[in-house]
Amino acid sequence: MTLGPDASGVYPIAATPFHPDGRIDWDSVDRLTDFYLASGATGLTILGIMGEAPKLDAGESLALVRRVLARTRATPVVVGVSAPGFAAMRTLARDSMEAGASGVMIAPPPSLRTDDQIVAYYRNAVEAVGDDVPVVVQDYPLLLGVVMTPAVLRRIFQDLPSCVMLKHEDWPGLEKISALRAFEREGTMRRVSILCGNGGLFLDFETERGADGAMTGYAFPDMLADLVRLAKAGEREAAHDLFDAHLPLLRYEQQQGLGLAVRKYVLQKRGAIAFDAQRKPGSALSATARGEVDYLLERLARRDARAGA
Amino acid sequence: MTLGPDASGVYPIAATPFHPDGRIDWDSVDRLTDFYLASGATGLTILGIMGEAPKLDAGESLALVRRVLARTRATPVVVGVSAPGFAAMRTLARDSMEAGASGVMIAPPPSLRTDDQIVAYYRNAVEAVGDDVPVVVQDYPLLLGVVMTPAVLRRIFQDLPSCVMLKHEDWPGLEKISALRAFEREGTMRRVSILCGNGGLFLDFETERGADGAMTGYAFPDMLADLVRLAKAGEREAAHDLFDAHLPLLRYEQQQGLGLAVRKYVLQKRGAIAFDAQRKPGSALSATARGEVDYLLERLARRDARAGA
Amino acid sequence: MTLGPDASGVYPIAATPFHPDGRIDWDSVDRLTDFYLASGATGLTILGIMGEAPKLDAGESLALVRRVLARTRATPVVVGVSAPGFAAMRTLARDSMEAGASGVMIAPPPSLRTDDQIVAYYRNAVEAVGDDVPVVVQDYPLLLGVVMTPAVLRRIFQDLPSCVMLKHEDWPGLEKISALRAFEREGTMRRVSILCGNGGLFLDFETERGADGAMTGYAFPDMLADLVRLAKAGEREAAHDLFDAHLPLLRYEQQQGLGLAVRKYVLQKRGAIAFDAQRKPGSALSATARGEVDYLLERLARRDARAGA
Amino acid sequence: MTLGPDASGVYPIAATPFHPDGRIDWDSVDRLTDFYLASGATGLTILGIMGEAPKLDAGESLALVRRVLARTRATPVVVGVSAPGFAAMRTLARDSMEAGASGVMIAPPPSLRTDDQIVAYYRNAVEAVGDDVPVVVQDYPLLLGVVMTPAVLRRIFQDLPSCVMLKHEDWPGLEKISALRAFEREGTMRRVSILCGNGGLFLDFETERGADGAMTGYAFPDMLADLVRLAKAGEREAAHDLFDAHLPLLRYEQQQGLGLAVRKYVLQKRGAIAFDAQRKPGSALSATARGEVDYLLERLARRDARAGA
Repeated sequence: MTLGPDASGVYPIAATPFHPDGRIDWDSVDRLTDFYLASGATGLTILGIMGEAPKLDAGESLALVRRVLARTRATPVVVGVSAPGFAAMRTLARDSMEAGASGVMIAPPPSLRTDDQIVAYYRNAVEAVGDDVPVVVQDYPLLLGVVMTPAVLRRIFQDLPSCVMLKHEDWPGLEKISALRAFEREGTMRRVSILCGNGGLFLDFETERGADGAMTGYAFPDMLADLVRLAKAGEREAAHDLFDAHLPLLRYEQQQGLGLAVRKYVLQKRGAIAFDAQRKPGSALSATARGEVDYLLERLARRDARAGA
Repeated sequence: MTLGPDASGVYPIAATPFHPDGRIDWDSVDRLTDFYLASGATGLTILGIMGEAPKLDAGESLALVRRVLARTRATPVVVGVSAPGFAAMRTLARDSMEAGASGVMIAPPPSLRTDDQIVAYYRNAVEAVGDDVPVVVQDYPLLLGVVMTPAVLRRIFQDLPSCVMLKHEDWPGLEKISALRAFEREGTMRRVSILCGNGGLFLDFETERGADGAMTGYAFPDMLADLVRLAKAGEREAAHDLFDAHLPLLRYEQQQGLGLAVRKYVLQKRGAIAFDAQRKPGSALSATARGEVDYLLERLARRDARAGA
Repeated sequence: MTLGPDASGVYPIAATPFHPDGRIDWDSVDRLTDFYLASGATGLTILGIMGEAPKLDAGESLALVRRVLARTRATPVVVGVSAPGFAAMRTLARDSMEAGASGVMIAPPPSLRTDDQIVAYYRNAVEAVGDDVPVVVQDYPLLLGVVMTPAVLRRIFQDLPSCVMLKHEDWPGLEKISALRAFEREGTMRRVSILCGNGGLFLDFETERGADGAMTGYAFPDMLADLVRLAKAGEREAAHDLFDAHLPLLRYEQQQGLGLAVRKYVLQKRGAIAFDAQRKPGSALSATARGEVDYLLERLARRDARAGA
Repeated sequence: MTLGPDASGVYPIAATPFHPDGRIDWDSVDRLTDFYLASGATGLTILGIMGEAPKLDAGESLALVRRVLARTRATPVVVGVSAPGFAAMRTLARDSMEAGASGVMIAPPPSLRTDDQIVAYYRNAVEAVGDDVPVVVQDYPLLLGVVMTPAVLRRIFQDLPSCVMLKHEDWPGLEKISALRAFEREGTMRRVSILCGNGGLFLDFETERGADGAMTGYAFPDMLADLVRLAKAGEREAAHDLFDAHLPLLRYEQQQGLGLAVRKYVLQKRGAIAFDAQRKPGSALSATARGEVDYLLERLARRDARAGA
């Protein structure tokens, strides 16, 4: 089972559960994996930025990959392998694929500037991990500072057949989805899967623009799955009603640095993990902030019962 | 009438109306000023970043200041005077104050890095514009890349009495408001006005954390005024209900680069300006994007009649 | 007299002399202009970054342009018109050309990232200043963070005939000069003038790679003129001997932020300006640093008598 | 043998030799280690940025540490352990110390902005590697974008006793050395070792300002050792004569990105490594650039016979 250009649905960016003392909480890894699968996830993405991947060492990373893969079985798993250098990227990518992963995700390093540098980076990355490994291109300028035009993405996808998916989290980014789908229609770019990140903040319209689904870690992956399903079914009003109900909380979770604390706090409340701890350096919620999240959940529960559970 | 540390309410970041050929649309300047005043604005902020200030030359900037001031009378007007150098800043600040402005707003240049550089910059800026001119400190790391800790802001406010207001648009930023208000309570910082920007994306909680109101350009300043009023009155549920109704549109407007096109499009629809044109280089809405905004307005109108007008 | 693609020699980046209290020192403006002309300059560049241009307001900038032009007569003068917006850029450019300038220099704003953004920026800038105004494209990634590949520069020069010169200060940058000259030889790019900045730190080899000369503010423009002349005459050893003699001082002057203080200190010692003052915010030399410059001048004087004058 | 605050002399930033196909060239690792030791190095620094550390995976990094340590015996070795996260940093640091390293070097991640963030980062780093491990603080704003004031460095050194050395490569940076030494004299900061990087471009004056030596990778570490010795002996003229003779080449090597290709080319010519290859992504010298280096070596050989060998 490998990742292909027709992937769709929801691939949650999995949180990585820790004990309060910083050790990986393996029981919660299992529980959280089950939670994602039960939420209607069509795939899973582990070792992403919001999975605190850079805080794990090489051994821990591979152990996490194996632990999750032991549980997901038929569900495809994408492993984030972004690294400062290609040797480390290759090692984790090859080991992950051998362990049963379906593909890898690669973000560009912040130092890239020119169009040619970006394309060359992905060419080198594909050479490093091997062109038999399906690659997700992560396009996240807000955090990484690397700006990829639609034309640059087209060059990457045309030059590198193993790049099969775009993790789209440009902001603003709706026109980029339209531009890429227009390339496909006019025959200048082959079909790729587009899953959207950025906390889901524009997922209501991203699906309408042609995105295939979501790849983000919002603490209600079940809502994301419902939304993608409704959008595909053409139930526009129902999709927006559901999205709008969640937007106040979703927006609150979409805070750089702090957002992961919100997410883990809600995941913990939902019973998906035992602790909301982050490994150092992490952010923490003040009592006031926890109260705000509780209040948002309470308000949400009036429109979506899952928030009250 | 000068700006003081007790300023509160809504100071809209005024858009600058242009004709489609790029000339300033003076009639719309008047109409838009009237619109803001009628919306319940307690003040006005002109020549902000979202007012396309950097696109005006020195003569146009001063002409705009005078035009608006001729109309606002009792309502205080803050003029953005951020500039690459202090001489241009001083010239615009002195001329604006002479014309009747109530204060000036100053953003730090993106090159600043260390705490001391930031404090020194505001010291130099105050010296440049004159310490008799009330200053609004603009704290906008997302766009400017300059990160001011609460302690640095305290140093600025303690060292420079003419700095009377914080335009707060850090993100995440709720804890910063709490930290500054705690400084005041513990007596280590004098009282300053805190008005919030960032498109209002967290205004529901910012008011609860101690902000005095909003300084942002969302195309429904009347909603912002209502929200601040409800929050001050302690009507929490009503405040959140109103905010949540607007959040889908407000969020759509909060798109870097594209947001101003959304804002001007809605302002035009509301009759506040004649054209939604931006001076070059500007962003433009695709037909699809305009349709999305229309759809959001339609949905909003079900809960706030002003969106259907 | 307008700037053309065959310009060569040395166009010093003129310092702007100030009184210790921050006023422009007009007498020294005249004296310094005479000094540059007497040093063998084939042109002059005013209002560059190292000319403290951002510290002048609009009125002062134009006054400086007129003052210098009143004195230079047959020598072409390039005016830096970089600005946060096109209206201010246009105003200064048109006024300068009317006053007798030969061309303008435009640096890209630090926010530009993609190839297309850079090309579009210069297209808009040329439209703003008018396509009858010769333009110098400033390529200075170290300071501005904007990286222009040779292919992007070619697009600019091919699309925009009024762009006639490159102020080359990429670092490393030797291969870029070779690449552009190769484009010319293979017929894919028309001829442009290439003058080198970056303090002259690689001018010994830049001239060998095909640069037409220097556009930098090193306090010995007479040395730069000699070097360019020797290089053109094919006197390689003599050129390098002269360059190497100056390199310790030239390198000392090439310190971001501090370099201008060194430059003005030496210009003052050479009698070209009355004060080494910078307008705020400026850097200043410590007593130790002045002693180091004195020592470098003393050592240099053994090989170039001009340093002992 | 551990690193202490009295370390001095030259700790070359060791290049990492590769075969043309990208494998580590272990024979050259040995040969290069011997070369550094024979050059008068008082210590060695491996896995620095210019040692292509980010291109090695975890296993290779540790293997390199062990290989070098097997050869250096009495000479202290500093290991660069900078990493995106603390777990990887800790693993490499502990394993290296166990293998016999004398200390570790840690550079701040480019995302740090405020003074407090920088101090907190080093506090967390020291906690991660263990406070029994001597730490070199790398201060390299040109590349990393993190600006540490003298006061911030003082906070780090006062708060964290295991931080015993500053790798100083701020630019301009002479005043920073003076400021830190003044802190020591006035008793507000304990003594730390200061070794200078930045290619050695200001080493002539850095030693005079109070630096203890060099930690940089210039291909003539023997010259660096002589220079530091002459400076300590107070032979100012001889030190500058030697430095100035090397400056044209040293400056040529100090080109971001390209410099390592120059360095490895010269090291290869000097017989210290078998190939000048870099692991991908690497820079390469054009034939013209190689000719320029040859020419510089030829000119240098007239004043320093080692360049002609």
